[in-house]
Amino acid sequence: MDYNAFFVSALDQLRHERRYRVFADLERIAGRFPHAYWHAPEGKREVVIWCSNDYLGMAQHPQVIGAMVDVAARMGTGAGGTRNIAGTNHPLVELERELADLHGKEAALVFTSGYVSNQTGIPTIAKLLPNCLILSDALNHNSMIEGVRQSGCDKVIWRHNDLGHLEELLKAADPDRPKIILFESLYSMDGDVAPLHAICDLADKYNAMTYVDEVHAVGMYGPRGGGVTERDKAAHRINVIEGTLAKAFGCLGGYIAGSAAMIDAVRSYAPGFIFTTALPPAICAAATAAIRHLKTSQWERDRHQDRAARVKAVLTAAGLPVMPSDTHIVPVLVADPEKVKIATDMLLEDHGIYIQPINYPTVPRGLERLRITPSPYHDDVLIDRLAEALVDVWERLQLPKNRQALAAE
Amino acid sequence: MDYNAFFVSALDQLRHERRYRVFADLERIAGRFPHAYWHAPEGKREVVIWCSNDYLGMAQHPQVIGAMVDVAARMGTGAGGTRNIAGTNHPLVELERELADLHGKEAALVFTSGYVSNQTGIPTIAKLLPNCLILSDALNHNSMIEGVRQSGCDKVIWRHNDLGHLEELLKAADPDRPKIILFESLYSMDGDVAPLHAICDLADKYNAMTYVDEVHAVGMYGPRGGGVTERDKAAHRINVIEGTLAKAFGCLGGYIAGSAAMIDAVRSYAPGFIFTTALPPAICAAATAAIRHLKTSQWERDRHQDRAARVKAVLTAAGLPVMPSDTHIVPVLVADPEKVKIATDMLLEDHGIYIQPINYPTVPRGLERLRITPSPYHDDVLIDRLAEALVDVWERLQLPKNRQALAAE
Ligand SMILES: Cc1ncc(COP(=O)(O)O)c(C=O)c1O
Ligand SMILES: Cc1ncc(COP(=O)(O)O)c(C=O)c1O
Repeated sequence: MDYNAFFVSALDQLRHERRYRVFADLERIAGRFPHAYWHAPEGKREVVIWCSNDYLGMAQHPQVIGAMVDVAARMGTGAGGTRNIAGTNHPLVELERELADLHGKEAALVFTSGYVSNQTGIPTIAKLLPNCLILSDALNHNSMIEGVRQSGCDKVIWRHNDLGHLEELLKAADPDRPKIILFESLYSMDGDVAPLHAICDLADKYNAMTYVDEVHAVGMYGPRGGGVTERDKAAHRINVIEGTLAKAFGCLGGYIAGSAAMIDAVRSYAPGFIFTTALPPAICAAATAAIRHLKTSQWERDRHQDRAARVKAVLTAAGLPVMPSDTHIVPVLVADPEKVKIATDMLLEDHGIYIQPINYPTVPRGLERLRITPSPYHDDVLIDRLAEALVDVWERLQLPKNRQALAAE
Repeated sequence: MDYNAFFVSALDQLRHERRYRVFADLERIAGRFPHAYWHAPEGKREVVIWCSNDYLGMAQHPQVIGAMVDVAARMGTGAGGTRNIAGTNHPLVELERELADLHGKEAALVFTSGYVSNQTGIPTIAKLLPNCLILSDALNHNSMIEGVRQSGCDKVIWRHNDLGHLEELLKAADPDRPKIILFESLYSMDGDVAPLHAICDLADKYNAMTYVDEVHAVGMYGPRGGGVTERDKAAHRINVIEGTLAKAFGCLGGYIAGSAAMIDAVRSYAPGFIFTTALPPAICAAATAAIRHLKTSQWERDRHQDRAARVKAVLTAAGLPVMPSDTHIVPVLVADPEKVKIATDMLLEDHGIYIQPINYPTVPRGLERLRITPSPYHDDVLIDRLAEALVDVWERLQLPKNRQALAAE
């Protein structure tokens, strides 16, 4: 049997659908973010990154780098074991305390990624509840979908952010059955936000648990960076808050926070937590430094919002099809899998601007886009250059200039 | 509904079965491994670690720490994005090249952990093969079991390292059906090794792919640290070699290596690879430094084997029930979930020796044990002290002194 032929044909399929992905080989320059080197096939070139999820530039913050360097030098590079077997390191214990405090919860548990938190956290919680029903928002992230799938529990999907539909489904379910409402606080591809209190009201009314993914909000919203749940004063109403250390906190890893018993049960039963090496102490120390800094510093959050608003205004004024977004995410619609790739290639090659095309399966087919993520370090000059470059590419590719134009096509 | 009560009762269950786990809060001391601080409830104490999977002490190697510190200072702490969206960093690209070279394969792909490599790699490969049948060794690691489960493919389990049984199952299967034989090269709880060539012979005869987990062998076996597949000159006969960066290489992360098309297909289709933040550049650089060092330095491997042999000899001479092991793993049988915990508590409290009890589900019930992992840095004095401490604990708890004594009970 020619096994390789199966893999080759799977790749051909992707090329045929114009969604074969090429990764840009980047080298960030600490202290000069968003500037970076791009290792292009022809050699190393300087570019400006406009699509990083290091939303606040914390991965280059001197205190965060300092913590990583200091702890690596003092304690070494790796944890050396699973959490149970020699891997629980002191900076990790401190990080978990910091996270519990951040969200005002009794306890927190750290995983090797936000992905893993959802993937092993959701099924572990759900399987500890007899005959649990999961009510999942239609736009939930792949890590949550995989978590639900692995639970083997019954699930129903509610239309994205549609409270009427959610209530309908809750009403139809057996009142004595344990239920988990699963959703994100901030959806990262469209930049819209969930109605937290209204969801919690339904959870109260129908006696359901709530599990919210705050991956694209922690650090960035709320007076201490506790996320949208903190900003909206809803954290105490949520049973499980899940987040990442890899985006606004600039490191790696994920976590859940909640009641002591729930956290202890996940710690004790989750295979994706038990059977894997713990996060390195230096990563944990760096994440703790980022969280602590953002608990008191409002500058990054204010400047982040200011930059996002400016990008939206400048691009909209230039006639570009900025999609509506309530938050720091600036999606610009292309709606063509081939052109979105050509557009970003042009931006990179001709303008030194790196924005990755977003295509299926990350967004639905037909909604291919540029997803622009301004940071506190994208200044006015960079924003003006971005607008000029986009206008140039839009004209050369004859892309529709705004949503009206697109709808009329 | 009182959701917390479900979690509380799940924890009670564990306590009742004497397998509620308490994690030791450790602080490693770079340059003084295996010495570490233990943050005990009463305060910080120095202890000796005897159960780390930093098998070769590479997590404290100056070149490895140096690489991490240097790259963190130059490029920052986090990758800032998924592999596709701004996260592919140059040290990660170099690491993948280094790993492909290590195993003599066309390509390699890095994941956030060894666990994730198996969990998302196995189902992605299997699902690209129409109607694939997975033949899985009975003692495969949880990450492989989860990977098989998530594939949704048919699976059959062959008795551990039993070639006759494997052949029986291969013979019974439809010859035209794609098949993957899934196993580990070195089983980490018993320390035994798979018959690689014999398995490859069967794979050839019955036209199956081979996928081997080398997590507990890479860095430690083979003239360049390519694992048991290198030592036994079988790497070219294996389709997929999976490994970790978190054990002998002293860092964090996992990988698979194989044909260019297979790796590219996993890169393009595996959800646990696509939808998660990439490994930080500093971690990748540290891992590359460890791999490069161990490609040429034989000292760590020789000394590691020497120390393991000495520990086995000294403990056996002291009448302790050392379980048979062909490798660097030294399991000592206790066969009682309660006593194994008491024994390790005594070792830690009274002797400053940290060995985590190994109990169900990591090993079958009734085979609870101490799992001792000597490193190049455990000297003769430490080994003698270990033996004395174990003898003291064995006498105080009246544990059976060797396998014969145990069998006679
Ligand atoms: C909503 C959401 N949840 C979880 C994750 C995974 O987090 P991590 O990158 O830490 O694995 C992501 C993206 O990466 C995400 O967008
Ligand atoms: C056989 C085996 N495979 C995979 C893993 C997971 O590797 P990692 O710790 O890198 O997640 C482990 C243990 O952790 C293991 O023992």
